Amino acid sequence: MTEWRSDTTLDGMRQRVFTASAGTRDVPGVLWTPEGVDGPLPLVLIGHGGAGHKLDDSRLDLAGRYVEAGVAAAAIDGPWHGERAGARPEGWGDAETDAMLLDWRVTLDELVAQPEVDAGRIGYGGVSMGTIFGLPFVASEPRIRAAVLGLAGATPRLVREAGRLGCPVLFLMQWDDELFDRPSVLALFEAIASSDRRLLAFPGGHAEAPEAAREASTRFLIEALSP
Amino acid sequence: MTEWRSDTTLDGMRQRVFTASAGTRDVPGVLWTPEGVDGPLPLVLIGHGGAGHKLDDSRLDLAGRYVEAGVAAAAIDGPWHGERAGARPEGWGDAETDAMLLDWRVTLDELVAQPEVDAGRIGYGGVSMGTIFGLPFVASEPRIRAAVLGLAGATPRLVREAGRLGCPVLFLMQWDDELFDRPSVLALFEAIASSDRRLLAFPGGHAEAPEAAREASTRFLIEALSP
Repeated sequence: MTEWRSDTTLDGMRQRVFTASAGTRDVPGVLWTPEGVDGPLPLVLIGHGGAGHKLDDSRLDLAGRYVEAGVAAAAIDGPWHGERAGARPEGWGDAETDAMLLDWRVTLDELVAQPEVDAGRIGYGGVSMGTIFGLPFVASEPRIRAAVLGLAGATPRLVREAGRLGCPVLFLMQWDDELFDRPSVLALFEAIASSDRRLLAFPGGHAEAPEAAREASTRFLIEALSP
Repeated sequence: MTEWRSDTTLDGMRQRVFTASAGTRDVPGVLWTPEGVDGPLPLVLIGHGGAGHKLDDSRLDLAGRYVEAGVAAAAIDGPWHGERAGARPEGWGDAETDAMLLDWRVTLDELVAQPEVDAGRIGYGGVSMGTIFGLPFVASEPRIRAAVLGLAGATPRLVREAGRLGCPVLFLMQWDDELFDRPSVLALFEAIASSDRRLLAFPGGHAEAPEAAREASTRFLIEALSP
């Protein structure tokens, strides 16, 4: 069951905030579509980073780019982010990842039931925490046709899940990432089993990805989901 | 002095074969421009690989993409390639690189004197041997505003020259390159001093770069040289 809570339009972008229900958890989310478009449209699920939430500036910027290209976009709050803000658990790990994976799955089930969304053209884009939570989701979700991942290093679980990826992947890297060391990031890219995978690295630290990274990400997904 | 030897047009692409003169060396080259365009146009200098020459299929394909985008392109034969075919010197090194650098410089002098060419918008694209010879040329040539390089590993000279690069660089890598090992290729990228540099890696061996690599290369230079 999903509750649609608000429906607003700004600069040609329709924004609907909802709450999906995943078992006992409520999942606050948002769907963006071009104003006045019936669809069905491709849909990009946007995973936010560790300091973000579903309606942060970066999500709104990305959503605007997708909508401008005629692609729907959606985001949900992470487990202790946005409307679910609260204490970050110490030593978050498999349990949080599994819960977030379920949150995304329930959300996707709901979104593909909307007439605006083409269930055959779903993509995922999320780096940093958006990859730590999102990579296992993409690996377990055959409906995802292309993904942008990156800004994360190899952990046993991520390496294992990367070996199950099959869709085209653009993997982003910041060459001087202070949070994830270079060999670890390269090892995670190396672990991706998709035959169509590419690594794109820019200079700078974890939070210093340039405009060109954002442009390459959105372009990759828009092109991958085009008919 | 340059001798213009032929002038033909095919599918909207005008192709002029010339011989530039660099000291006692003749430099066989080719200039491609869109048919019936006066310019001045941006110009991409295309460096071929070790098994190629100025008019090989890959050069013609790249030239076609540039010309279609309203960008002029030019190529010259390597020191023992194409019209200069002959025995490859054993242990080719600094002398061959210096000679090829002079060949490119003389060629560029000639090309910027053509009314079709905008001297303020020159790019270079060449991987493998096109980088081994081309990187030192780009590093020494302030007229080059953007470059695509890659598929080459660190040597003392290339690392030194990479430290002099200042223009935006897209650096291509084949993740499973059997000719240049991964740490060596990453070390050469690392040595590039340009603040605007990016690494783009695809799976596969040295000669297995996918269409997406070619597309990213031409797009990078076309966008970098656009007004």
